[in-house]
Amino acid sequence: MNTLNLKDIQNQKDTRGIEIQKVGVKDVEIPLIIQRKNNTGQTVSAKARINVSLPKDYKGTHMSRFVEILSEWGQKNLLGVDIYGFLLEVANRLDANSAELRFKFKYFIDKKAPKSGYSCPMGYDCAFEGNLNKETNKYEFILEVNVPITTLCPCSKEISDYGAHNQRTFVKLKISYNAEQILWIEDLIELVENCGSSPVYPLLKREDEKYVTERAYENPKFIEDVLRDVISELRKFEQINWFELECEAFESIHNHSAWAYQKEFLNK
Amino acid sequence: MNTLNLKDIQNQKDTRGIEIQKVGVKDVEIPLIIQRKNNTGQTVSAKARINVSLPKDYKGTHMSRFVEILSEWGQKNLLGVDIYGFLLEVANRLDANSAELRFKFKYFIDKKAPKSGYSCPMGYDCAFEGNLNKETNKYEFILEVNVPITTLCPCSKEISDYGAHNQRTFVKLKISYNAEQILWIEDLIELVENCGSSPVYPLLKREDEKYVTERAYENPKFIEDVLRDVISELRKFEQINWFELECEAFESIHNHSAWAYQKEFLNK
Amino acid sequence: MNTLNLKDIQNQKDTRGIEIQKVGVKDVEIPLIIQRKNNTGQTVSAKARINVSLPKDYKGTHMSRFVEILSEWGQKNLLGVDIYGFLLEVANRLDANSAELRFKFKYFIDKKAPKSGYSCPMGYDCAFEGNLNKETNKYEFILEVNVPITTLCPCSKEISDYGAHNQRTFVKLKISYNAEQILWIEDLIELVENCGSSPVYPLLKREDEKYVTERAYENPKFIEDVLRDVISELRKFEQINWFELECEAFESIHNHSAWAYQKEFLNK
Amino acid sequence: MNTLNLKDIQNQKDTRGIEIQKVGVKDVEIPLIIQRKNNTGQTVSAKARINVSLPKDYKGTHMSRFVEILSEWGQKNLLGVDIYGFLLEVANRLDANSAELRFKFKYFIDKKAPKSGYSCPMGYDCAFEGNLNKETNKYEFILEVNVPITTLCPCSKEISDYGAHNQRTFVKLKISYNAEQILWIEDLIELVENCGSSPVYPLLKREDEKYVTERAYENPKFIEDVLRDVISELRKFEQINWFELECEAFESIHNHSAWAYQKEFLNK
Repeated sequence: MNTLNLKDIQNQKDTRGIEIQKVGVKDVEIPLIIQRKNNTGQTVSAKARINVSLPKDYKGTHMSRFVEILSEWGQKNLLGVDIYGFLLEVANRLDANSAELRFKFKYFIDKKAPKSGYSCPMGYDCAFEGNLNKETNKYEFILEVNVPITTLCPCSKEISDYGAHNQRTFVKLKISYNAEQILWIEDLIELVENCGSSPVYPLLKREDEKYVTERAYENPKFIEDVLRDVISELRKFEQINWFELECEAFESIHNHSAWAYQKEFLNK
Repeated sequence: MNTLNLKDIQNQKDTRGIEIQKVGVKDVEIPLIIQRKNNTGQTVSAKARINVSLPKDYKGTHMSRFVEILSEWGQKNLLGVDIYGFLLEVANRLDANSAELRFKFKYFIDKKAPKSGYSCPMGYDCAFEGNLNKETNKYEFILEVNVPITTLCPCSKEISDYGAHNQRTFVKLKISYNAEQILWIEDLIELVENCGSSPVYPLLKREDEKYVTERAYENPKFIEDVLRDVISELRKFEQINWFELECEAFESIHNHSAWAYQKEFLNK
Repeated sequence: MNTLNLKDIQNQKDTRGIEIQKVGVKDVEIPLIIQRKNNTGQTVSAKARINVSLPKDYKGTHMSRFVEILSEWGQKNLLGVDIYGFLLEVANRLDANSAELRFKFKYFIDKKAPKSGYSCPMGYDCAFEGNLNKETNKYEFILEVNVPITTLCPCSKEISDYGAHNQRTFVKLKISYNAEQILWIEDLIELVENCGSSPVYPLLKREDEKYVTERAYENPKFIEDVLRDVISELRKFEQINWFELECEAFESIHNHSAWAYQKEFLNK
Repeated sequence: MNTLNLKDIQNQKDTRGIEIQKVGVKDVEIPLIIQRKNNTGQTVSAKARINVSLPKDYKGTHMSRFVEILSEWGQKNLLGVDIYGFLLEVANRLDANSAELRFKFKYFIDKKAPKSGYSCPMGYDCAFEGNLNKETNKYEFILEVNVPITTLCPCSKEISDYGAHNQRTFVKLKISYNAEQILWIEDLIELVENCGSSPVYPLLKREDEKYVTERAYENPKFIEDVLRDVISELRKFEQINWFELECEAFESIHNHSAWAYQKEFLNK
């Protein structure tokens, strides 16, 4: 069997005159190595989406090439490291003007209990996104972290003789920043955790549980408060181009969530 | 085009000598009418799984017949009402010894806020399961309810100077009971809600929020407590053959759940 | 207990100087009535997200009012019908400049098998979105349909001596259109189904299965083809402001998807 | 702060007289090392459920100890390796008669395209389960693999003049076997893949796509066929105590699945 004899349907001319903005593969599972703040790497299990633009004259893109390049860069241990280089190769080998990727993965950080000091890894859902336009030579990198925190309701505390409802709350933060000034996953997570009523922990002994419970009660926060406190912090970063922030509290007194959202472009 | 000329591959003889326990269709979406406690019906949107046993001599079952019978019974408004009759027809038309179904659906109940009296519908994930063995003439009906409640941690309350962590907790309850003595979804849900630190509500005004917060604080419960309290109640029912009970608390101080499980056969 | 004595923390002044773009409730479950093309209504089970903007001076929004208004409009059977009126009331009662909603629901349409004519309901995931800005008096309505189709790979057909891989493919279509010229869910779904290799059906007898199999083989389509064909159709509609289109094929030869995306503003 | 002064509520006496079968933690995320067939290890990201039985006299179990032991064994790199030892320690430190765990994780295997020989990692959802009863000294280990394959419909092929519908199908296989005679994940996956119309691959070049398309067409299979072929193979293994097998085909011509299930105890 000779590949050369197999017709390349994708390469045929298309006559509908429609340029496609994004076409590629989604939910490709691949292990990749992420650079940690402390200079060692962490191997994570990622779900990848990679896509390119398709000129109006071509009938289809070449789906297998995306996976081929993923596999090659994975073997070179560069997949999670050189996003720009990867996108450039994708754009070149797919003969495309623009290329985009999204890697979604679980990232582990050792987390110490606040009093006992017991340490245990905790997993955070994170994502890398990159997009490259070869024509304009514009490259953008976007980092996403999803951070669980505790929020304790200020209204419930104020109006009740004792107690206050509290719950697990998820903060999703996406930031676009200039690639030369790295923002570490570890630092972004810490920034968000400091804006809740309390961080959450994988391992809490009794003395830690007392501390965390009291800290949350002393520190009541609406999701509006969490949102505003994170925003105040983000506005201080010079290297951030824009951020998108979402806060969802899985209310302990309802079967629905409280939810808040903000997107800001920081012009500096 | 004449169907009679199309070969029936499923009817061909199989020689591997293996009887299949369960084969059918899954995730068929279908609207059906559920009988409410107050004698009116509620139209729900269900996901259905229906399956039969397949004798060792047959190559395959006839998948389209399951959906055909679903559609016919739906039009007669009997789909959520006469589970036994439906299974008998499935078993007969599929020429099978046993037939099984599972309908999963969202069921709405009007729920009143505890102080203000404001009313609002609240949706509960429920399921009907039925299985019928034609040979032994054994029929079983299983009812499943999923009930969100609040749990407030007794340990956190005890050791902390103020406050106590609390969270949304899901109780999944499946019961098999004698079909002549109906157990209503409404009553099972209420039974479970009474075993938490507090029920959850769709709509709470400030006076309700105060009440619910204080009630939970006065009424701390581990998931072990919830489980035991529900078990104590279930053991009183004469018509229950067995129950399966699962309790999962989405801890507000962790990113994982506390979980407990019990299955009991009540011999009477 | 008197509500008047309970402090309204949300109404307190906030000093961080940050206006919040979106804050409200998410995943509130509520039944609502949708207008069908044939003039009867269909009761659907919806998940609602509703949010408003919050001026920088207020500490928090009033979460319970969203659910209160939902409940009131549900009782008047207007919830799925008068989106504009609902948003206006939300904005007014929450004292907000802008209000937004999203209702996600399963919608059933009777679908006839292509040859045998057997009919069976089929469920489609749909959504209504609305957003209203009181200041600028701008109102936008967005309709979303998710349509499963079959795609059969043109490349696989061309290079293989027999057969061709095919799979279930999901097309997600969101359109913003002028509310005076209604676009029916039924028509949008049909438009998309006609752009696949074949529609999918809930119930197919043997003669239908033959027809559908052969139709797909005669009509091979990449997701690029599906995307372009849907785009060509959408560009013809005068009342569409913009559309967002996503196509995902759950490849039968891979464990990942082929994916394509387009967003266009139609200026007329 | 001294832990000794914090009351241990869990240790209090319970008077309801109900022994709890299973109580513990769920969805704890933790990295662990899995032994591969080729003797090297693979670090995977697991979701863990661990639980013990609780005697009727105790009010609650000690949730933090589960996570503590997880963390300790993770640091020793023994977490995914010595399941028996881990459960024994859990049972001892929780003072429980029985202990159970479930680790769910994505496992990567390099997979070669059938003609071109291109290699790429492919992720499979797998799970380890263990349960230990200290009293009876009974220990059981259960291995779960989830394997995507292609199935091509024999009926559609037979009745159609050309083409045949095919789709991605998931086979879930759980086996309990004697721990001394290891069954490798790699071998179980291969066993299942050989029972489909064709395996699925992460990376297929045109010559591979031709091969896979034609192989599936030459090798049509109902899910009943897949189920029976896997069963025939499993019955040959001497070390298997029981298996549970589930097969779900995401039909390309429907929006629902075909589904089959079998559980067998092999008595030898």
